[in-house]
Amino acid sequence: MSARIRWPRRNDPKSIRARQQTLGLEGVVVEQDLEPYARATEALTGVAPVPVAVVGPLEMELGHYELEEPAGALMERGRTSDSVYVPLANTEGGLSISLARGARAATESGGFKTHVLRDRVTRASAFLFESTLEAATFARWIETRLREMQDWLAGAPVEGLSRHAKLREIETHVVGPMCHLLYAYTTGDAVGMNMITRNSYALNQAFVLEHSPVKPRRVYLEGNMGGDKKISHRYFEGGGHGKTVIAETTLTDEAIQRVLKTSAEELLDLTFVGTHGAVASGMQSVAFTPATAIAAMFIATGQDVGMVGTSSMAHGTALRVDGGLNVSIRLPGLEVATIGGGTTLPYARAWLGLIDCEGPGKVYRFAQIVAAATLSLEISASAAMATAGSENFYKAHFERGGLR
Amino acid sequence: MSARIRWPRRNDPKSIRARQQTLGLEGVVVEQDLEPYARATEALTGVAPVPVAVVGPLEMELGHYELEEPAGALMERGRTSDSVYVPLANTEGGLSISLARGARAATESGGFKTHVLRDRVTRASAFLFESTLEAATFARWIETRLREMQDWLAGAPVEGLSRHAKLREIETHVVGPMCHLLYAYTTGDAVGMNMITRNSYALNQAFVLEHSPVKPRRVYLEGNMGGDKKISHRYFEGGGHGKTVIAETTLTDEAIQRVLKTSAEELLDLTFVGTHGAVASGMQSVAFTPATAIAAMFIATGQDVGMVGTSSMAHGTALRVDGGLNVSIRLPGLEVATIGGGTTLPYARAWLGLIDCEGPGKVYRFAQIVAAATLSLEISASAAMATAGSENFYKAHFERGGLR
Amino acid sequence: MSARIRWPRRNDPKSIRARQQTLGLEGVVVEQDLEPYARATEALTGVAPVPVAVVGPLEMELGHYELEEPAGALMERGRTSDSVYVPLANTEGGLSISLARGARAATESGGFKTHVLRDRVTRASAFLFESTLEAATFARWIETRLREMQDWLAGAPVEGLSRHAKLREIETHVVGPMCHLLYAYTTGDAVGMNMITRNSYALNQAFVLEHSPVKPRRVYLEGNMGGDKKISHRYFEGGGHGKTVIAETTLTDEAIQRVLKTSAEELLDLTFVGTHGAVASGMQSVAFTPATAIAAMFIATGQDVGMVGTSSMAHGTALRVDGGLNVSIRLPGLEVATIGGGTTLPYARAWLGLIDCEGPGKVYRFAQIVAAATLSLEISASAAMATAGSENFYKAHFERGGLR
Amino acid sequence: MSARIRWPRRNDPKSIRARQQTLGLEGVVVEQDLEPYARATEALTGVAPVPVAVVGPLEMELGHYELEEPAGALMERGRTSDSVYVPLANTEGGLSISLARGARAATESGGFKTHVLRDRVTRASAFLFESTLEAATFARWIETRLREMQDWLAGAPVEGLSRHAKLREIETHVVGPMCHLLYAYTTGDAVGMNMITRNSYALNQAFVLEHSPVKPRRVYLEGNMGGDKKISHRYFEGGGHGKTVIAETTLTDEAIQRVLKTSAEELLDLTFVGTHGAVASGMQSVAFTPATAIAAMFIATGQDVGMVGTSSMAHGTALRVDGGLNVSIRLPGLEVATIGGGTTLPYARAWLGLIDCEGPGKVYRFAQIVAAATLSLEISASAAMATAGSENFYKAHFERGGLR
Repeated sequence: MSARIRWPRRNDPKSIRARQQTLGLEGVVVEQDLEPYARATEALTGVAPVPVAVVGPLEMELGHYELEEPAGALMERGRTSDSVYVPLANTEGGLSISLARGARAATESGGFKTHVLRDRVTRASAFLFESTLEAATFARWIETRLREMQDWLAGAPVEGLSRHAKLREIETHVVGPMCHLLYAYTTGDAVGMNMITRNSYALNQAFVLEHSPVKPRRVYLEGNMGGDKKISHRYFEGGGHGKTVIAETTLTDEAIQRVLKTSAEELLDLTFVGTHGAVASGMQSVAFTPATAIAAMFIATGQDVGMVGTSSMAHGTALRVDGGLNVSIRLPGLEVATIGGGTTLPYARAWLGLIDCEGPGKVYRFAQIVAAATLSLEISASAAMATAGSENFYKAHFERGGLR
Repeated sequence: MSARIRWPRRNDPKSIRARQQTLGLEGVVVEQDLEPYARATEALTGVAPVPVAVVGPLEMELGHYELEEPAGALMERGRTSDSVYVPLANTEGGLSISLARGARAATESGGFKTHVLRDRVTRASAFLFESTLEAATFARWIETRLREMQDWLAGAPVEGLSRHAKLREIETHVVGPMCHLLYAYTTGDAVGMNMITRNSYALNQAFVLEHSPVKPRRVYLEGNMGGDKKISHRYFEGGGHGKTVIAETTLTDEAIQRVLKTSAEELLDLTFVGTHGAVASGMQSVAFTPATAIAAMFIATGQDVGMVGTSSMAHGTALRVDGGLNVSIRLPGLEVATIGGGTTLPYARAWLGLIDCEGPGKVYRFAQIVAAATLSLEISASAAMATAGSENFYKAHFERGGLR
Repeated sequence: MSARIRWPRRNDPKSIRARQQTLGLEGVVVEQDLEPYARATEALTGVAPVPVAVVGPLEMELGHYELEEPAGALMERGRTSDSVYVPLANTEGGLSISLARGARAATESGGFKTHVLRDRVTRASAFLFESTLEAATFARWIETRLREMQDWLAGAPVEGLSRHAKLREIETHVVGPMCHLLYAYTTGDAVGMNMITRNSYALNQAFVLEHSPVKPRRVYLEGNMGGDKKISHRYFEGGGHGKTVIAETTLTDEAIQRVLKTSAEELLDLTFVGTHGAVASGMQSVAFTPATAIAAMFIATGQDVGMVGTSSMAHGTALRVDGGLNVSIRLPGLEVATIGGGTTLPYARAWLGLIDCEGPGKVYRFAQIVAAATLSLEISASAAMATAGSENFYKAHFERGGLR
Repeated sequence: MSARIRWPRRNDPKSIRARQQTLGLEGVVVEQDLEPYARATEALTGVAPVPVAVVGPLEMELGHYELEEPAGALMERGRTSDSVYVPLANTEGGLSISLARGARAATESGGFKTHVLRDRVTRASAFLFESTLEAATFARWIETRLREMQDWLAGAPVEGLSRHAKLREIETHVVGPMCHLLYAYTTGDAVGMNMITRNSYALNQAFVLEHSPVKPRRVYLEGNMGGDKKISHRYFEGGGHGKTVIAETTLTDEAIQRVLKTSAEELLDLTFVGTHGAVASGMQSVAFTPATAIAAMFIATGQDVGMVGTSSMAHGTALRVDGGLNVSIRLPGLEVATIGGGTTLPYARAWLGLIDCEGPGKVYRFAQIVAAATLSLEISASAAMATAGSENFYKAHFERGGLR
C-alpha cells in the first residue's frame, strides 16, 4: 500500500493548480480557464476538449407537445417543419459524413417526421419486509394512496421538495418479502434525477413510513427497478425513463438508389438478417448503431453521458409501402434535458443554441432532433451494409480519413 | 422543404471558419486551435471541452497478461501493485467525491484486485440463402476451414489487411435460410473495429465466396450478431467484444462502518433487493451505476463513447466472507484502447499518460484501472443507498455542489 | 411423395376404429372407451394414460379473492387454512417423494401462505399502417375509447360474444407503422382463450374498424404481444396472462436440519450461486425446477399443457428472517382453469375434485394449491442440491426407484 | 395444523388401494391396472388418460446423423424421405385439424426438410470460493483438464458411472467469487439427466476436489447455468440442452392460396408484425404456438413434460424465395428420448412405435418428426391469423367442436 497523500477536492484556483502540478499535467488539458466548470465536478483538474462536427440539414416535421394536467398525458398540439444542423462531438472518422448522407436521403424523400409518445421518469424505491404477507399487505395499502401523495407533495410540507417533479402514477411489484414502489414523475425540461430523488425520499420518510400499516425491515430509495443507467426490458417496452420518441421517413426508391447506392430489396434482406441476428444473439434492441449518434449529440450538449446506453435502446423497422420504404426508429427512453446539469455549461449552451434547444420549453424539440439524427445514421449505415457484400461499409472503414 | 445550402465537409482552416461563421458560433466552442482534430471527424466545427476531475489514489493489485500464440488464450504472467489517480470527464456533481470515497474504503481494506479473463472482438458476417438446407450445408463446410482462413490472412494475399487483427475462432449460427458467421479476433491495444472489418470483408469476398460449395443470395459484413454498440446476452455472458475484466475487494467491517457509514448487513439486504429488482425489471446487468464511471473515463481518454452502453454491461456480487464483505464487478465486454482512434488526440494522450496507459502494451492495464474505478463508484453509491432509508444517497443528491 | 390416403377426422366409433386398425394399434392405448373424449380432439384415436401419484398433506393458509367491479381489481376477502393432497401426473421417479418432503418441511414450520396478486388474460391485436404517423394517430384515438368498448360489449350487439370475458383495460404499443392493441380481460374460472378471441375479434371488426379515424393496411387478432404460450419479459414482470400468485413459508432451522438435512447457510449460499447462475446464463426465471410440479398438476387436472412453459415462469427468493429462512416463489402467469376445456373430462374432474377445485368459483384456490406444490418441490430440490457437494441430489438421481 | 396421517409411498397393490380408498377415488382414474406404472412414480394412485389424436401424413425428408468420435460433432450421413402420422395427446379442439392442414400445405409444396445441427446436454456445477482471485485460479486450472477428465471417466474408477454419458467439452464462467463449470455431454438416445448427474457428481468429488489447487467453500452439482427446465438465452442461442433441430418447407403460392386460404403477402405482413411484437414484449422466441404441438407429442410419447417450455424455445423465419415462401422453425433445445424414463411405459412405446421411433438409434429421427409437426401447426395457425382480420383464426376458436 502506498503512502497516501491528501488529495484536495476543492475547486478554488489554488487547489486546481495544485492538482495540475502534482500530476505534472500540461498542454491542452490544462490551458483553458476552468472557472466556468467549478460547480460541475469536485476535484476539477482540466478538460477533455472533444472535437465537434456540424452536419445538416435535417429536414423535419416535428410535433408540439404538452402535458395534460393533472394526469400528465402527452398531447400533440400541432406539427411544424424545420431544418436543422446538428452538432456531433466525436472522434470517429466517417460518422459525420455518413449521418449527413442519411439525412440527405431523407430530405430527398420528403424529410423526417418525428413523434413523442410518452414522457416519464421513474424512481423505484424498495421496502423489505419479513414475509410476502407483509409485503402484499403493504402493496394493497399503498396502491390506493396516489391522490394523497400528490396532495402531500403539492402542500410542500417539508423543505427541499421540487415542484417541477410531478408525481403521476405509482406502481407496486411484490416479489417474496419485498415490495418495490415505482414512482413515475414528469420533470419538465430536466432529466430530473435529483428532483425525483428528493421527492421520493420525502415521500418514503414522511408519508409512507408515517402511515404504513406494516413496518418494513429496510427502506431503500432505489431497488434497481427504476431503469437508471442500466438497460432493462421494462423500460425498453414501455418507456418511463425519459422521452419515448419515434422518427420515421419513407425513402423513395430514387433516393435509395441515387443517394444510398442500394435498393429497397437489399435493405429489406438486410433487415431480415439483422432482425433475426439481433434475436439470435439476445440483443434487446433491433438497430444497427444508434448509440453512435446519441453519444455524439450527448457530449456536445452537456447531457449525462452515462445515459448513452439506456437512451440508445432502439427498435427499428423497415416496411415496403406505397411510395418507397418506410423506415423508423423508436427510442423508448431518451434521457435528455435542455436545462440543468451539464446543459448549463457554456459549451453545452452554445451547441444547444445552434439547434434552438437551449433552456425551458425545448426538451421535446430536442428529443425529436436527436431521434432524427439517430435515424439519419441508421439509414446510411444500413445502406452501406446492404450493398453487395457490404462493399460500401467496408470502404467507409478502409478509406475514410479517420484516425488509425 | 427549405432551400438547401451546400455544406462543406472539408477540414481546412477556411472551411472550418466558414462553418463557424455560417452558424454564428462564438466563445469557448470555437476559440481553440482545431488543427490537431482535423483528421478526427469530417465537418469539424468546434469543440466540447468537458471538465475533468482527477481523484485517487486507487490502490490496486493488477495482473499482467499475454496472449498465448497461436490460440490466443489469455495467460496471467504475474501480478503487481500500483496506486493510480483516475481522470473523470463529467458534469455530475458528487460523482468524483463518491468514487473517491469508494476507493478509500477499498484502500483501507487492502486495495482492489483485478483480473482479465478474456480478450476478443467479433465481426459477425451473414450469408443469406434460399433455404435452410443450403445454409446448413454452408455452415458444415465453413466450420472446418479456420486453419485455412488463418493461413490465408497470414499470407496477406490482398492489400489493406491488418496484421494486428488475428483471427482466433469462427462460429456459425444457422437460423432459417441464413448462416451467421462469427469471426473472433484479437486486435492488440486497439479496439479494432476498422481492422476486423477489413479482414472480414477480405475473407468473405476472397476466401469464402471463392470456395463455398453453395452460393449465397446475399452477403453482409455484419448481421447483428457481432455485439457492436448494442447490448446483447451473448456478449454479456461470454464476452467476445472487448476485454472481460473483474475487479474485486474484500471490504473490512471497519472500513464499511468508518468510511462508508453503513454495515455489511445493510449492504447485503440492499444487494438482495437490488438483484431481485434487476431480475424483476428485466435488467441484464446486476449493478447500480457502472455506466457513470465508464463514461467519465471514456470521454477523458478518447475512447469510443458510443460503446459506453455495451462496455457498462456488468455483473456485480457481494458475499460475506472471512474478514469482511467480498464485492466484485464483472465487465464482460470493456471496449478499450490505448492506441488508435480518439486515443491519439493530445487531450486523450495526456489523460492516458496520467495513468501510465498511453500507447502500445498498455491495454490490459487500462482495462483493469477502468474496472477498479467502476467498482469504486459501485461501492460508494451502494453504501449511500444502504444507509437507513438511503439517507446518504438522498443527501448526495440534495446537498452536493452540483449544477442544478 | 407417397400416395396419400384420405385420413378421417371424425370421432364416431367407426372412424375411430378405422384409424386404430389402419395404424395397427393395440393394447393400453386403445382399450379404453373413447366416447367421453369425442369432443376433446378431432381424429381421436386412443389415449396416453399418464400415471398419477398423490402426495400430501400440504398445509396451507389461502386467501379468498374477488374481483371488484367494474375495475376488476383483485380484493382479498379473508384467509383460511386447509390441508390438501395433490395429484401429480408424472413418470419421473423421485418427484413425488421429493415434493412430499418439501411439504413436510413447510408443515413443520407452520405451513405455506399463499397470495393471489393479479388476474388478467390478454389478447394483443395488431393494426398495421403505412406510417408511424398513422399508427400514432390511431393509438391516440383508441386510448380514450375503453369505456365505449366496454359498453359496446355489454350491449351484446353481435352474436357469439362471451359475457364471462370482461374487458378491463386496453393499452397501445406503437413501433414503426404498427400499433399493437392489448386487450386485458378477466375470464372467471376459465383460462378464456376462446372467449377473449371472440370478443376481441368482434371489437376489432365491428367497433374499431368501424370508427377508426385512420384505416389500417392489415388487422391481426394477435401480433405476438399477448403472451400466449411463449415466455416474455412483459408477462414475467407484470403478469397479465393468468393468475399472479406467490407461495411462501418461513422454514425453521429445525425443519431445515431434521427434514431437509441441510442448513440455512448452505441454502443461502446455494441461492447466491443459483441466482447469479440464472443471471449469467440469461434465464428469466430465478428458480430450480418449477416446471416439474406444474406439468404434473396440469396433466392430471386437464389444464392446457402447452402452457407449462409460461405458467412456470418463476421468481424465487430466500431471506434470513427472525425464526428461520423465508422462502417464496412468485408465479406471475399461472394459466389455470377449473371449468371448460380439458377440465371437463372425467379424469380431470376426478383429480380436481380431490383437491376441492372442480367447477366454478374455485380457480383462485386452485392457483394457490399449484403454487404451494411448486414451492414444496423447490424447497426439497434446493435442499438436496445444498448438501455438501449436492450429495443428496446425486443420490436422488442415483438410487431412487425410477425408470432408467 | 391438521392432524397428520401417515401417507404410504410404496407401490404394492395394497398401498395403492389404500390411497385410492382413503381419497375416495373411483371411475376412470383408478380402473386401470397400475402394475406397469409401479416404477414410474412413488405414491402411485391412478392415471390421467389423456386423449390422443393421430393426424398425417407429414411428408418429410430427414437427415441421418452420427456423432463423430471422439469430438462428438454431429455428422450428416445421408438423407431419406418418409411419410408419418403423428400422435397428439391433447384436449384442445381444433389443434389436430389445424396441424393436419399445415402438413397438407407442406405436402402440396414438396414436403418438409429437417436438419439436426447439434446434440448436447449440460450439467453446470458451481464452485464457490472466498474471492475472485481463487475462482479465477480454479478456472484457469480446470480449463486445461478436459482430456484427463475424459480419460478418468473412461477408466470407470468409481461405481455407478454411465458410459452412455460422454463428456465432450467443459467451459468455465467466473463471476465474483464463484466459478460455474459447465459439463457438456452426449447421452445417446436418452435425455440423460440421471446419467450426467451421476458422472458430474463423480467428477466433482473424485477428480476436481481431489486435484484442485484451491479449495472451494462449497460445491454444488448445479448452479443454474445448466439450462434444465428454465428457458435461458444461453440455450436458446447455442443449444446445449437437447437437440438443435430445424424444420423447413418452401410453400408454393398455390398451396398457400388453396390449402391455407391466404397469400404470401399477408403471411409476410403477419411475420413483420409478429416478429416486432415478439421483440416489443421481450419474448425470446419468435414463433406463434410451438409449445402446443410439442406438449401434445411429449405427453403421448412419455417425454418429460416439465421440459415443454425449454423444448419449445423457437426461432421461426419466413422469406420470399424463388418458388414461394420459405418458412422454417429452429428448436435449439429439443429434449427428447426414445429410451429410458417415461418412454419405457407401454403407452409411450405404442405411440413411439407408430412413428417408428421406439428404442435405440431413433432419437434424431424423433427430434426431426417433432420439429416437422411443430412447423405444421405454425404454418396453419399463422395462416389462420393472416386472413383478413384473422377471420379464420377467430372461426377456429368460435366454431370448432372443442370443449367449452
